[in-house]
Amino acid sequence: MNIAILTFEGFNELDSFIALGILNRMKGKGWNVQITCPSDSVTSMNGVKIQAQQPLEFANNADVVLVGSGVYTRDIAKDSHILDRLKLDPSKQLVCAQCSGALLLSVLGVLNGLPACTDLTTKPWVIESGVEVLNQPFFAKGNIATAGGCMSSQYLATWIIAKLAGNKSAESAIHYVAPVGEKDSAVSHSMSIVTPYIEALDAA
Amino acid sequence: MNIAILTFEGFNELDSFIALGILNRMKGKGWNVQITCPSDSVTSMNGVKIQAQQPLEFANNADVVLVGSGVYTRDIAKDSHILDRLKLDPSKQLVCAQCSGALLLSVLGVLNGLPACTDLTTKPWVIESGVEVLNQPFFAKGNIATAGGCMSSQYLATWIIAKLAGNKSAESAIHYVAPVGEKDSAVSHSMSIVTPYIEALDAA
Repeated sequence: MNIAILTFEGFNELDSFIALGILNRMKGKGWNVQITCPSDSVTSMNGVKIQAQQPLEFANNADVVLVGSGVYTRDIAKDSHILDRLKLDPSKQLVCAQCSGALLLSVLGVLNGLPACTDLTTKPWVIESGVEVLNQPFFAKGNIATAGGCMSSQYLATWIIAKLAGNKSAESAIHYVAPVGEKDSAVSHSMSIVTPYIEALDAA
Repeated sequence: MNIAILTFEGFNELDSFIALGILNRMKGKGWNVQITCPSDSVTSMNGVKIQAQQPLEFANNADVVLVGSGVYTRDIAKDSHILDRLKLDPSKQLVCAQCSGALLLSVLGVLNGLPACTDLTTKPWVIESGVEVLNQPFFAKGNIATAGGCMSSQYLATWIIAKLAGNKSAESAIHYVAPVGEKDSAVSHSMSIVTPYIEALDAA
């Protein structure tokens, strides 16, 4: 399972790394989670420089694409040099966005009429791009999922694992990362957020 | 306010970056949060290479030191080349540890009889080092705080901001990163975890 976490210049550390950490709980089952960037390295919104693990094109054949967030997303949403390198296909991939990543899914035409979750700062820009923004942490339909608010990236990871490897694996991943003394409640809560959208798919 | 997030080879991404992201909500107030490493770069437990923002010695004069976690902490806890570079002083600094970071605080002699929180994997090694391990996400006394379970790093960040800049600033930081639709409950929960330890200090 190849998973591309799209991470751009000015990226939000929480949005890329919470998902990366949780999804890597599946590393032992062969999941290959990769920080995927338009350049050899990118520097976060708070000045941390990281090396790309994969070039942007890795996303086009990945099983899962998770578009991270950052402070330059509005510029990236107009940058054809970056956008033209992406050929995402939700009929063949899970395509997810965290916070301002929803704006990129919108301009890439992936949302195709679906409502989306995003952060409060990005919300007006996503609305301006023609997408209904939901006042909730997570939404998914079919192979497309969006989450709003940095810490919601745990829900994206939960949904991806539950959808591709089952609820038990998702519960185990959240149990591991959850605070000591709060593990059972954290698992219940995360599963309560994402399960309705998996059932909806199964019933569809 | 200089804040050193100690980040070693094999580091856990959640443990260093959740705290970094939340603490940087205070960047506008002059807080300087720095990934602080024993070498020019370190690679995470899941293969992400990042550049150090500061050398290890930055921690010795920082206002806050947060010891991150990782898969090689037991080795680091025996590595005098690394340990000898650290001169932490909880009488002058806030000294915090996330997950296996508690083991480093223990061998550095910082805990000085205090109990600690850590993750379930590290727990036996922290006990072996002579420290009582608490079955809870967060504990603090005076200027020393520990947290257990990756996502508990939000509580360390909340405590640091509340202690140094007041509850309103801590609430604002958590509100920003919390999931959309869960912001008020996330703020209440984080504050309920850390506030008793701030009151306890003030009353001491």
